Amino acid sequence: MGNCQACCNRPKNTNIRISLPAICFVWQISMIILFGVFVRYDEESDSHWVEYMHKNNITSHVENDFYYRYPSFQDVHVMIFVGFGFLMTFLKRYSFSGVGFNFLIAAFGIQWALLMQGWFHSLDPTDGTIKIGIENIINADFCVAGCLIAFGACLGKVSPVQLMVMTLFGVTLFAVEEYIILNIIHAKDAGGSMTIHTFGGYFGLVISWVLYRPNLHQSKRLQGSHYHSDVFAMIGTLFLWMFWPSFNSAIANHGDGQHRAVINTYLALASSVVTAIAISSLSHRRGKLDMVHVQNATLAGGVAMGTAAEFMIMPYGSLIVGFCCGILSTFGYLVLTPFLEKHMKIQDTCGIHNLHAMPGLLGGVIGAITAATASKSVYGHEGLVNTFNFVDEFANRSVGTQGAHQAAGLCVALIFALGGGALVGGILKLPLWGDPEDCNCFDDEVYWELPEDEEMSCFYDKCD
Amino acid sequence: MGNCQACCNRPKNTNIRISLPAICFVWQISMIILFGVFVRYDEESDSHWVEYMHKNNITSHVENDFYYRYPSFQDVHVMIFVGFGFLMTFLKRYSFSGVGFNFLIAAFGIQWALLMQGWFHSLDPTDGTIKIGIENIINADFCVAGCLIAFGACLGKVSPVQLMVMTLFGVTLFAVEEYIILNIIHAKDAGGSMTIHTFGGYFGLVISWVLYRPNLHQSKRLQGSHYHSDVFAMIGTLFLWMFWPSFNSAIANHGDGQHRAVINTYLALASSVVTAIAISSLSHRRGKLDMVHVQNATLAGGVAMGTAAEFMIMPYGSLIVGFCCGILSTFGYLVLTPFLEKHMKIQDTCGIHNLHAMPGLLGGVIGAITAATASKSVYGHEGLVNTFNFVDEFANRSVGTQGAHQAAGLCVALIFALGGGALVGGILKLPLWGDPEDCNCFDDEVYWELPEDEEMSCFYDKCD
Amino acid sequence: MGNCQACCNRPKNTNIRISLPAICFVWQISMIILFGVFVRYDEESDSHWVEYMHKNNITSHVENDFYYRYPSFQDVHVMIFVGFGFLMTFLKRYSFSGVGFNFLIAAFGIQWALLMQGWFHSLDPTDGTIKIGIENIINADFCVAGCLIAFGACLGKVSPVQLMVMTLFGVTLFAVEEYIILNIIHAKDAGGSMTIHTFGGYFGLVISWVLYRPNLHQSKRLQGSHYHSDVFAMIGTLFLWMFWPSFNSAIANHGDGQHRAVINTYLALASSVVTAIAISSLSHRRGKLDMVHVQNATLAGGVAMGTAAEFMIMPYGSLIVGFCCGILSTFGYLVLTPFLEKHMKIQDTCGIHNLHAMPGLLGGVIGAITAATASKSVYGHEGLVNTFNFVDEFANRSVGTQGAHQAAGLCVALIFALGGGALVGGILKLPLWGDPEDCNCFDDEVYWELPEDEEMSCFYDKCD
Repeated sequence: MGNCQACCNRPKNTNIRISLPAICFVWQISMIILFGVFVRYDEESDSHWVEYMHKNNITSHVENDFYYRYPSFQDVHVMIFVGFGFLMTFLKRYSFSGVGFNFLIAAFGIQWALLMQGWFHSLDPTDGTIKIGIENIINADFCVAGCLIAFGACLGKVSPVQLMVMTLFGVTLFAVEEYIILNIIHAKDAGGSMTIHTFGGYFGLVISWVLYRPNLHQSKRLQGSHYHSDVFAMIGTLFLWMFWPSFNSAIANHGDGQHRAVINTYLALASSVVTAIAISSLSHRRGKLDMVHVQNATLAGGVAMGTAAEFMIMPYGSLIVGFCCGILSTFGYLVLTPFLEKHMKIQDTCGIHNLHAMPGLLGGVIGAITAATASKSVYGHEGLVNTFNFVDEFANRSVGTQGAHQAAGLCVALIFALGGGALVGGILKLPLWGDPEDCNCFDDEVYWELPEDEEMSCFYDKCD
Repeated sequence: MGNCQACCNRPKNTNIRISLPAICFVWQISMIILFGVFVRYDEESDSHWVEYMHKNNITSHVENDFYYRYPSFQDVHVMIFVGFGFLMTFLKRYSFSGVGFNFLIAAFGIQWALLMQGWFHSLDPTDGTIKIGIENIINADFCVAGCLIAFGACLGKVSPVQLMVMTLFGVTLFAVEEYIILNIIHAKDAGGSMTIHTFGGYFGLVISWVLYRPNLHQSKRLQGSHYHSDVFAMIGTLFLWMFWPSFNSAIANHGDGQHRAVINTYLALASSVVTAIAISSLSHRRGKLDMVHVQNATLAGGVAMGTAAEFMIMPYGSLIVGFCCGILSTFGYLVLTPFLEKHMKIQDTCGIHNLHAMPGLLGGVIGAITAATASKSVYGHEGLVNTFNFVDEFANRSVGTQGAHQAAGLCVALIFALGGGALVGGILKLPLWGDPEDCNCFDDEVYWELPEDEEMSCFYDKCD
Repeated sequence: MGNCQACCNRPKNTNIRISLPAICFVWQISMIILFGVFVRYDEESDSHWVEYMHKNNITSHVENDFYYRYPSFQDVHVMIFVGFGFLMTFLKRYSFSGVGFNFLIAAFGIQWALLMQGWFHSLDPTDGTIKIGIENIINADFCVAGCLIAFGACLGKVSPVQLMVMTLFGVTLFAVEEYIILNIIHAKDAGGSMTIHTFGGYFGLVISWVLYRPNLHQSKRLQGSHYHSDVFAMIGTLFLWMFWPSFNSAIANHGDGQHRAVINTYLALASSVVTAIAISSLSHRRGKLDMVHVQNATLAGGVAMGTAAEFMIMPYGSLIVGFCCGILSTFGYLVLTPFLEKHMKIQDTCGIHNLHAMPGLLGGVIGAITAATASKSVYGHEGLVNTFNFVDEFANRSVGTQGAHQAAGLCVALIFALGGGALVGGILKLPLWGDPEDCNCFDDEVYWELPEDEEMSCFYDKCD
């Protein structure tokens, strides 16, 4: 209770009664206005679809892109809300915030993402409106994933107001970065190793670095897990793990593209479970497993397969990717996270460096190498063109050039993450946002009305 | 322990050893007999399908309605069993009943619904049998949803026998009401704002009113949540939230209808999360959030989008619907639920008035307005006919008339809910059904064998 | 704490720091090598797919088998990892192992299954490689299900190393058994009543019999559930229950086959919930329900419908199957499980005899009878040929012969289960594998680092 006393002596205002509702209302009303001006249905979700079918000799409703992508969309949706949300319930006294704030910022973020990404990708030049359909809402979920990853690094140390601000900027940066990587550089990144994981991971780490709290040890009592909160987190882990094939294939090419992305991701994930658990056992003097590794490092294979999922990386290639990532990610939790905290002032609550940043980087590199070594003998002529979309102004691009552009895309993701993180971290450091005191981090009680018998931690209410 | 003593003094028989098995067996055997006489596969699930394909020049199996609807069906299925089930685990000592009774009555209800709805919608006049396929099982799930909503108002205060009786009558009433609304009045209601939510909501509230317990405060000790039971309830919330687009699109028209219903519902839901959380924060003196609002009010946008999901309500229209419902529903929890309990003798355990009844009513009104203001310029000629199914005897119906019929449909839902609720409430009030004593409500121990160390509440066993 | 003392006196080595990582690495590296030599994409997941389309006059990507099966695949995937995993979290202090070991062995098993099943079913004779696509990964999940069922009998009494060994052999045996049943005998078994449930069930029971622990009562303190662990297990139950229609239809014939399998399974499951709960209530002197029955016996209808799901068993037939299985399975938990433990030395932790073995057997018999009584008048000529795949060398097989072959298939499953179980049980009995002491069974602490405040059980660490 010494910490409680310490807290009482330094009252920091965590009252968000004005700021949170204000930001929610201003932004939601802005969304309505902007959607009113800019957003319309695309030709596949508009009631003119039947006429569109006639005009384009489409004979079956099943050719509506909706039917190719909806099952994957719902899986991605589950990953965003249940996967990320429950993965962040692992702390003993921060489960409400983990799943609740994730819910809030994702629900806000997808709206803003529809606008920002739509602006770059779905602008109808004839009338200046953004036309949305199934692919847009998948991409909005993807875009938000970047911010949720960043949230993982800050979990327990920021207020919901800060998270809303972070999401606004994060989504904006993401949309620009993604446009540069996919459209200007013309790199392929169906599962987002670069655009989502590398960007989101380093973005969050830099923010966490800017917001470094030297006295975070004051809330050490709340930094562990509880037996049941660890089981809750496994819900998140498993839904992420199971549906990652859908994540990496959701916006892949129809037909073999989606099919192959699923198989590759499935294999990489299976492989990383086995090696993550092996390293976890090896690192304990009696061979005991650590839940942190099982909850996180098992997923690294899916991250690293994000760019190359569509490519002809071959089943054994996918297994190798998963093999390496399971090891690397577990070592990250064992060695790098403590190192980053101690020597680099990066407090990474969920270890996103090991689950997203590093495997994302690796995924980008794997994508570049796989692209550079692609060949017509393996892909077939049409297959090569389809897979890398070598059409129009890119019709003459060689695979070597493509590999170089993939690498360039990775650099863009990194630059946006580092620069953007510094900028957003700076904004979040302003003493406006109602973030908790060092001794009250990782505590739901700061932002939630808790069930009566649960209010066992110390808070200002009780200081008087 | 004063309450325990009180309970011991008024022994009420909660032994359901005869009544529950009896009702289960009688009804399940009746189902088998009725299915034996009446229910057969429809042409798409019968093994004559290949011949049917040849006869109708269908060239691909993918045109089997199964492939258009199965992904959505499974999502709806998850909503019914995990969504509703886990949403009702929030009470500290009633999680077994919440998820378990939900399981029982849904599993029974879908069988009865297949018969009742099939009788109205899928009767084959040539041989007097009901022909079932994928659409029937989706509709059966929908039908049961109405009863599960009503369960929410009665949660903790009724026995499983009462719930079975309520389900039998509820499903029957639903099927008649739905037939009148959809077929006779020819109103559109793809996501069931009227047929499911308005009906189920007011049906449950009236039952709860009839079963009013003036001494319910005697089990006050059990009416709150536990930290982990609130996290369990978030599983229900999130699966309902994520899969609501499937709910509203599951039986929508192939092609743009399903596509648009998904987008509209996705947007309305996103918007209601933001405003529900804003109001929740605003209502607490330090801006703290309330889990009850996050678990429930965030879903109101999906309910209110049930009727209009298929319509060209436009993306911003969906955002506005969610915006209003998030606010309205949260205010409901803050103001109306206590008011209803205190002044109108309606004890609404889960607050279904705020989550289903009121947003459902609003959804019906929105549907009527949107239909009345539809135009060929927005929908296109074919689009208007398709969306409102202006064919056969309805070929000459104007959109204004359609709007009026939508409003008429809403009235029918209300009348059935109020009348049916009074009738069923009256039946459930008979002293036959083994419902718990006022001091033993919200207690799993009455109907479940609990793990040993958990039997900490008072029950008759211990009275002697 | 007497047991703790007892444990301390008999130190058995449960240190798996060498054995678990070693087995993981050796096997994962073997997988990579074998996949490198043998496994390639099939024509639908290879980038030559577009050329394949042209050659075979396929006009739409939607004809890629991927789109017929992917939604069901993901449901099956959820059943394997969340369904089985969470169903096994019911013990008060073994939730980490239940969900974690399930994760490990399933992730390893699916890789080995792709090889073994591919060897029998997907070998390309032109180049000696295994060509994999969506159907292979569904079958790999199915194959692993057999081992996970067997895990259920051994839950709490074996080490993860033993589970890996069991999975290696189990998958191998499964692949051979399945090949004999499906290809040589040409029995139909879309949902695996015989190949998966009968095999997996008896395989696990025999292993459990070989590994019989006479002093298991020493860990009696850990054999019960906890209030919240029972709610966790309901997550597993519900996801298994909801997605069982996908399980039974995932590899059924396109079109009516998949459609009918879903409807039949849906009905059987609904029916078994009602009767399982009826018997559960009937068996308690005050009519109270038992969570064990609700968690398990409600699923029996899906198991028993595995073989006949595709057949024209008629909706009422499905209800009858579920009706009987719900009763039978609940009686199993009430009567047979204690009997098996007391008189036959089979300690069946999860009661897989009642949930898988017995209903699986019944399912095989139902399949044989339904096949033998099939007729052209019910199925239609083409329907009969399609459903039973009476083509090529089987073109002249009569339905009576098919029924006999179904029965023969069931015998093969049994023989493999009993023989294989004895063999694998013998291997697992070797004192090499780091299994726990009798007094430390059902205890996560043996193999997991637990959150600090949770280490309340006794373990060797504390013996000194």
